[in-house]
Amino acid sequence: MLRASGAAPGGDVWIGDDAAVVPAPPGRLVLSTDAVVAGVHADLSLVSPADLGWKALTAAVSDIGAMGARPLYALVTLCVPPGTDLDGLAAGLAEASAEWGCPVVGGDLSGSPAVVASVSVAGVLEGALPPVVRGGARPGDRLAVTGPLGGSAGGLRLLRAGATATGPAARLVAAHRRPRARLAEGRAARQAGATAMIDVSDGLAIDLHRLADASGVGFALDRVPVAEGATVDEALGGGEDYELVVATADPGRLAEAFAEAGLRAPQVIGRCTEPADGRLLEGEPLARLGWEHAVG
Amino acid sequence: MLRASGAAPGGDVWIGDDAAVVPAPPGRLVLSTDAVVAGVHADLSLVSPADLGWKALTAAVSDIGAMGARPLYALVTLCVPPGTDLDGLAAGLAEASAEWGCPVVGGDLSGSPAVVASVSVAGVLEGALPPVVRGGARPGDRLAVTGPLGGSAGGLRLLRAGATATGPAARLVAAHRRPRARLAEGRAARQAGATAMIDVSDGLAIDLHRLADASGVGFALDRVPVAEGATVDEALGGGEDYELVVATADPGRLAEAFAEAGLRAPQVIGRCTEPADGRLLEGEPLARLGWEHAVG
Repeated sequence: MLRASGAAPGGDVWIGDDAAVVPAPPGRLVLSTDAVVAGVHADLSLVSPADLGWKALTAAVSDIGAMGARPLYALVTLCVPPGTDLDGLAAGLAEASAEWGCPVVGGDLSGSPAVVASVSVAGVLEGALPPVVRGGARPGDRLAVTGPLGGSAGGLRLLRAGATATGPAARLVAAHRRPRARLAEGRAARQAGATAMIDVSDGLAIDLHRLADASGVGFALDRVPVAEGATVDEALGGGEDYELVVATADPGRLAEAFAEAGLRAPQVIGRCTEPADGRLLEGEPLARLGWEHAVG
Repeated sequence: MLRASGAAPGGDVWIGDDAAVVPAPPGRLVLSTDAVVAGVHADLSLVSPADLGWKALTAAVSDIGAMGARPLYALVTLCVPPGTDLDGLAAGLAEASAEWGCPVVGGDLSGSPAVVASVSVAGVLEGALPPVVRGGARPGDRLAVTGPLGGSAGGLRLLRAGATATGPAARLVAAHRRPRARLAEGRAARQAGATAMIDVSDGLAIDLHRLADASGVGFALDRVPVAEGATVDEALGGGEDYELVVATADPGRLAEAFAEAGLRAPQVIGRCTEPADGRLLEGEPLARLGWEHAVG
């Protein structure tokens, strides 16, 4: 059920013992964790167990990428009711693990009233540059995103309306089912001197507020790139796109680094301002839209 | 709700960003994960949310100890229904974190139909000795345990019968509510050349079978140390005691190492045998009692 992603290299210990033993990373250790709960983050009447597994691993990997770091190893706990399609869950985890180069080296399996997949990732921050935290943006920095937003929320809307995974809806549905982590983009942004970074896991608006909170800045957005077929509200508040928001004092250098790495060009969407200037989209205050981690 | 266990040292990043950034460990990296589900591993009508939090962190830390390694950092995902006592959960996590010297550096919080606390721990395997895996025992090795067993199951039985945390039941109830990880014992066993090790998380009988499966040995137990007030069945099948079972070719050296470290003496309970000799307790086949991670 929980299987190691291939054989462990000589001397390493992967799944099957009390804990995994792997080489210490050649740089600082970066640790993230993320839980996906059926009925909260994934509707299993609309997406498959494999999609849920993919999302859980991708979300945790994305958090590593948003520091400018590289994922190395994943741990997975699966808590599931009887009858759950564990093979499907495991298949989605394995696909994401292969896609992001992050083997699953340990795990735990338990009964539970609801499907909960919790993934932790250990990664490495290579080289001497600091990690790109949320709190480093300064007034005057430009804000860029690595891609259009709202695709995941738009795909969910289409699935709820009965869309199939073919036809014009396919790209949005895929954005919801199989979100992408922007790992190469995160590393390129760090190398290019990004001052702050966050992944859009909960919605551009709320994640931008978090970056602004941590950095002590305001912001003024000129535009929001919306995924084709999605709405502006989905782009602002939908979340789970996992594109990166990058603050930089040198957007030309950021664009060059992305071009050199063969990545889609970052899109400048606005700039950081003095805190007293507020938090604006096209001159109007931007509400704190998106997914708050509240539990009532 | 999820709070860092004190301030991060200079240059480190703890809770509050996309991921934590900490120094790479001075030795091999050891990774474990464990989930505690209310109603499966913890009955919140009998134990407190703080007890559940303590158990979740202690179980993951214990897995690190069972390799002979030292825990360094914990990640926690809490998935909880509305109205859950998050402060209590967090308090138990923080108490265990302080007890085991393992700060919580990252986490995630989500709604869920059931309380699920999933803890991952990154630790270090110090020095050049190999980790103590489950599969290293050889016929002729002695088997020892770090303490009497069945305390947790006995405590649960007493709680179900309405026991309070005072009086003669107190020690068993404490064993259930606040199990101990045998970290110093695990490191001492590794230094003393233990050939195999496992923590008794699911029950002595089943965990011994796992060690025997991995090592390709049989075993013959002469005795089972039972916690005062617990039953033999609880000692064999109860689980969640987190004592360590250690295989060693040199029990004298193991005892010396424990004495030098000021630890309770390990108790020899039997020996490993040829596979064809079977798996015996006092000459009779030992059933695979205990907690299987099946989900139906």
